[in-house]
Amino acid sequence: MKIDATITAQSIPQGALEGRTAVVIDVLRATSTITTALASGCHAVFPVLTIKEARETVELLAGGRGAGASAVRGGTAGRRGACGTHSPLLGGERLARRIEGFDLGNSPSEYTPEAVSGRVIIHTTTNGTRALRAAAGSTRVLAGCFLNAEAVAGAAAGFGEDVLLACAGTRGCFSADDTACAGLIAGLILELFPGRVVLSSTVEVALELYRSRRGRLIELLGEIRSGGYLKELGLYEDIEFCSRINHFQVVPILNDGAMLALERIAVPG
Amino acid sequence: MKIDATITAQSIPQGALEGRTAVVIDVLRATSTITTALASGCHAVFPVLTIKEARETVELLAGGRGAGASAVRGGTAGRRGACGTHSPLLGGERLARRIEGFDLGNSPSEYTPEAVSGRVIIHTTTNGTRALRAAAGSTRVLAGCFLNAEAVAGAAAGFGEDVLLACAGTRGCFSADDTACAGLIAGLILELFPGRVVLSSTVEVALELYRSRRGRLIELLGEIRSGGYLKELGLYEDIEFCSRINHFQVVPILNDGAMLALERIAVPG
Repeated sequence: MKIDATITAQSIPQGALEGRTAVVIDVLRATSTITTALASGCHAVFPVLTIKEARETVELLAGGRGAGASAVRGGTAGRRGACGTHSPLLGGERLARRIEGFDLGNSPSEYTPEAVSGRVIIHTTTNGTRALRAAAGSTRVLAGCFLNAEAVAGAAAGFGEDVLLACAGTRGCFSADDTACAGLIAGLILELFPGRVVLSSTVEVALELYRSRRGRLIELLGEIRSGGYLKELGLYEDIEFCSRINHFQVVPILNDGAMLALERIAVPG
Repeated sequence: MKIDATITAQSIPQGALEGRTAVVIDVLRATSTITTALASGCHAVFPVLTIKEARETVELLAGGRGAGASAVRGGTAGRRGACGTHSPLLGGERLARRIEGFDLGNSPSEYTPEAVSGRVIIHTTTNGTRALRAAAGSTRVLAGCFLNAEAVAGAAAGFGEDVLLACAGTRGCFSADDTACAGLIAGLILELFPGRVVLSSTVEVALELYRSRRGRLIELLGEIRSGGYLKELGLYEDIEFCSRINHFQVVPILNDGAMLALERIAVPG
């Protein structure tokens, strides 16, 4: 099994993805937030690129109530009311802030069971969504972060195909949080299949980067551009949370345009 | 200008090197020792793969005294005697120890002006020599290490062609010292030519690895396999010395099988 990595959404190869399992990584914060949302019992997260697309998707899913309820797949919102009666939630960010009129921003701390259990979320971010879209030509697309590193490593390796660790980066530039996370996930796959995994040179160096920074991941996340910006906005808690390793066992997988929890669906091997 | 990196001698591509300047990096210790030798006034270091080849080269250069003297290019050994009367010195290591019957081991500390000024050295190491040989198809081959990082970055970029940072690695495996050094050299080239340099993903991550460890390079060198082995042999001083940045201004360049000091020869641009 070969493991390769790309360091920005823009460098994910067009074509050449068939036969590979892609793990999209955007630690701060798209894939951390999607993982948290699904761990909190959210049914599905639809990643979309633009605010316009987000609003249109909500209308599409909720406008015809029948269609909406179908898309929501009979939610289990519990105290929120009967199945399928909710509109999808709008979540996401621009410049790390909640978008006007949206229900949720892009902070994992907002995606509590109380807020999202049984709900469908239309989610728009910049780098993370772009990477998820760019990786869509792969046999399957998973979402990884520190929070679900072990779970996503096991799932990715379990499919038995080559793995592409597709780091989102930040606006076309390398971002060390994503690459260090790719290194961690690669290291975990190595532990699962010793002697049967070949790492690309980028992944070898990413693994060393992770080893050099483990134990000081909060510091690493605070140093990078997007982390520094979050600190300026008073979102230090997000940095702390997104640096937790193996906090969740949820593996988001892209299925017909939605990120679903792998363990809750049947996926063709 | 594109900068790429390979992480082991074995992964240097066959072919596809023409039109590129290769910088071979073996921090512990081949390129550090070659750089030190040339900084100490040694005329030329001939890197050879085997002990047999080393002894044969000495015989070839020294056996016919006329031929030998010519190869030595009229040494200036000073107190050692008249020009060209020396045989080449034999230097190198197996399992980090001096080879029986050799004049020098592979510790930079042995390559003092007193020992090597004006001399020619036949030098055999495992990983470093292999990388130098593998990179020989490049337009030119330089030797880099922490000791001459700035000088080799300036020289490599000055040729104006794409650069391959060819890390030696250790017995076919990734070695973090070489890759961190590649990251440093790439960062220095970026500073020299801002906006005109494109880094490969491996180099981007190597640069981040360097940044994550700078100020703690001795620790990094002590952690890796070859560094740990040097410590066991009581060669901690070599680790300390090889982690010094910009200690020398010498740039070794491969020329007709010999590493020469770039500033002392005329090289076709």
